[in-house]
Amino acid sequence: MAHELQIKPVAHIRTDFPTKFGIPRQAGLAENLKGKIVFEPAYRIDEALRGLEGFSHLWLIWGFSENMGYDWTPTVRPPRLGGNVRMGVFATRSPFRPNGLGLSCVRLLSIQKEEGLGTTILVGGADMVDGTPIYDVKPYIPYADSIPEAVGGFAPDAGRVLEVKIPPELEQKIPQEKRSALRDVLAHDPRPRYQEDPERVYGMGFAGLEVRFRVERTVLRVTEIETAARENVVP
Amino acid sequence: MAHELQIKPVAHIRTDFPTKFGIPRQAGLAENLKGKIVFEPAYRIDEALRGLEGFSHLWLIWGFSENMGYDWTPTVRPPRLGGNVRMGVFATRSPFRPNGLGLSCVRLLSIQKEEGLGTTILVGGADMVDGTPIYDVKPYIPYADSIPEAVGGFAPDAGRVLEVKIPPELEQKIPQEKRSALRDVLAHDPRPRYQEDPERVYGMGFAGLEVRFRVERTVLRVTEIETAARENVVP
Repeated sequence: MAHELQIKPVAHIRTDFPTKFGIPRQAGLAENLKGKIVFEPAYRIDEALRGLEGFSHLWLIWGFSENMGYDWTPTVRPPRLGGNVRMGVFATRSPFRPNGLGLSCVRLLSIQKEEGLGTTILVGGADMVDGTPIYDVKPYIPYADSIPEAVGGFAPDAGRVLEVKIPPELEQKIPQEKRSALRDVLAHDPRPRYQEDPERVYGMGFAGLEVRFRVERTVLRVTEIETAARENVVP
Repeated sequence: MAHELQIKPVAHIRTDFPTKFGIPRQAGLAENLKGKIVFEPAYRIDEALRGLEGFSHLWLIWGFSENMGYDWTPTVRPPRLGGNVRMGVFATRSPFRPNGLGLSCVRLLSIQKEEGLGTTILVGGADMVDGTPIYDVKPYIPYADSIPEAVGGFAPDAGRVLEVKIPPELEQKIPQEKRSALRDVLAHDPRPRYQEDPERVYGMGFAGLEVRFRVERTVLRVTEIETAARENVVP
């Protein structure tokens, strides 16, 4: 059957995540997470965004670029089920899927012109690695897209939220404007699987920092914060 | 910049629309419209759907296959604005967009095995031409995807609905199980643009029929129904 399609990024998104570790399971969970959509030169056409400012939310169709070259598997283990139960890939939003396309609803924060970048879009709640290719930007149309009575199968709610404890001397190392976003991310349990080992130290990169933490039951404690070798901070 | 991606259909959808004319502007507007997702042989793997039955709605990422070969334009004229006002393509769900990807939320009606087709999915509210390639099937996750307070720019609601009048002798030509879907489609004004010419006759193919109608103000009158040369009916 024909219908193979060659798609090109219309933009890339800048985020505070150097790797996928720590990224919330779904878009919108960490509202304070900012991302900046930078269009590719061929798509830096202001009139292509005309009218977008009237919408509060956007859809992004993007590529799980870290997986490029990986194959899909018919079943995956969703983190929200503890990483131990297999579900069909089409019943999940897992990255390891045919065609490797992601779908995220993000909040539209602002649209602005930036020197050398054209018109960029600042969004909230972005759950993507820095540099992720964006294949489409669409408006969120509430009457068609919002279905409050929809039933969410094995993902009926946002899941548990952890209490986040950051010692004051470590919190000072976090730029002020990144603190609430980091707390959001940590509260949504960035561990890939639930392992009930309170001694185990996890690490994640965020906004140019390397953040280490432990989890004991429902409490997440940050144990160390260092400046990361690789810089990536959403300006 | 790299990140070009070759994507392949995982499925095709069978619908009652032989062409794009008459298809509702968004998915879900015509709830009674049925579509059947038939997976490509390489993706006929039952376990890839495990857990999907727990969800009430699905996302489909699909291709505007009728447009293949057409180019995108930075601005388009949305039918809901009467077809006379230009908006940026990224502020609309227009098909004439870079990469030609569509996004639709549909209701999951049933999942069944069919001889020679593997496991198929019957969905409601599908706004696609018969044979449209589907590049991804994802569960609708209410806590991330449903945003009732979202603001919908120039598309704040489903738009006007027409009163549909079908003379009894014509209605008899419509298979009983297709009548409510056809009424839904007609009520949502299948004209490409609003032209206030009550004498003008429009035609659209639907479920193996050719349906002709006129519109005067808010009333749509079906004037003729014939059997179409090209058969396409969702079984």
